[in-house]
Amino acid sequence: MELKNLIRDIPDFPIEGIIFRDLTTLLRNPQWLRYTIDILTEKCSELTPDYVVGIESRGFVFGVPLAYQLNIGFIPVRKPGKLPAPVYSVDYDLEYGKDSLEMHQDAMVSGSRVLIIDDLLATGGTAGATAHLIEKANCELVGFGLIIELTELGGRKKLPNVPIVSLIQY
Amino acid sequence: MELKNLIRDIPDFPIEGIIFRDLTTLLRNPQWLRYTIDILTEKCSELTPDYVVGIESRGFVFGVPLAYQLNIGFIPVRKPGKLPAPVYSVDYDLEYGKDSLEMHQDAMVSGSRVLIIDDLLATGGTAGATAHLIEKANCELVGFGLIIELTELGGRKKLPNVPIVSLIQY
Repeated sequence: MELKNLIRDIPDFPIEGIIFRDLTTLLRNPQWLRYTIDILTEKCSELTPDYVVGIESRGFVFGVPLAYQLNIGFIPVRKPGKLPAPVYSVDYDLEYGKDSLEMHQDAMVSGSRVLIIDDLLATGGTAGATAHLIEKANCELVGFGLIIELTELGGRKKLPNVPIVSLIQY
Repeated sequence: MELKNLIRDIPDFPIEGIIFRDLTTLLRNPQWLRYTIDILTEKCSELTPDYVVGIESRGFVFGVPLAYQLNIGFIPVRKPGKLPAPVYSVDYDLEYGKDSLEMHQDAMVSGSRVLIIDDLLATGGTAGATAHLIEKANCELVGFGLIIELTELGGRKKLPNVPIVSLIQY
């Protein structure tokens, strides 16, 4: 069995012409949830991060069990207005308009090694913005960990030159 | 050291008069992240659930590592419009107005034992709405697992009569 077979393709979601890669069918299966976390842990452990940063909200799904397995801390990057203490903020472009992401200013010790986790790499907008947040915190980005990479969208080329682990490519 | 000491109190967030209990200071600490997940796992394992249901988005933070540790599946309950396949939907009251939560109709096998996980129990609005989603799916709610319970708000009294595990009370 391949990991890809556990992912459900939903045509025309959230808008016409997009095939949504639905990971909920993988998450509800105990064996494959474990396998996904274990393989992500194995591939990311050699990057020897001090922290996992997870991007709201599907980055939380994979980022926290990974941090637990690696025995390191977890730091959430969230949409504006969700984090209660002073934040660094970075804007990024959407197809139409802009959005931004925030991280607590005191989240990580300066100079730490940081791994960014999200469910999916598409155009690289949110992953790139999160990399800027790590830079603002004077920390070292050591890699990205993704479950799915949509290779045709070229997100990888827009990211800093660090290892990018993706478990499934479309 | 007590778990409570790892939580940061932020006055007047998100609005004046509210003390926000910030769990990010706990999550970034490897030792206490592990401890929190381990103690939650220990207390919830005796409820012998078949699935963990996590409420967006801080319920994802604790729900997925718990599902991993218990070797069972994880099911997300999300805000409207986020889940791509057909959903059950339940409305609930906010202080001003209404909101709703959704769960995939095919998320869980009918008759399964389900544990609901969130970070915080306040008035019980979202936890109660999620219990209704479990009922719609013809499954058995076996308990709630929370990190924090704000006991003065009486959320516990508004929930179905099942075990409620909370690690920290205010």
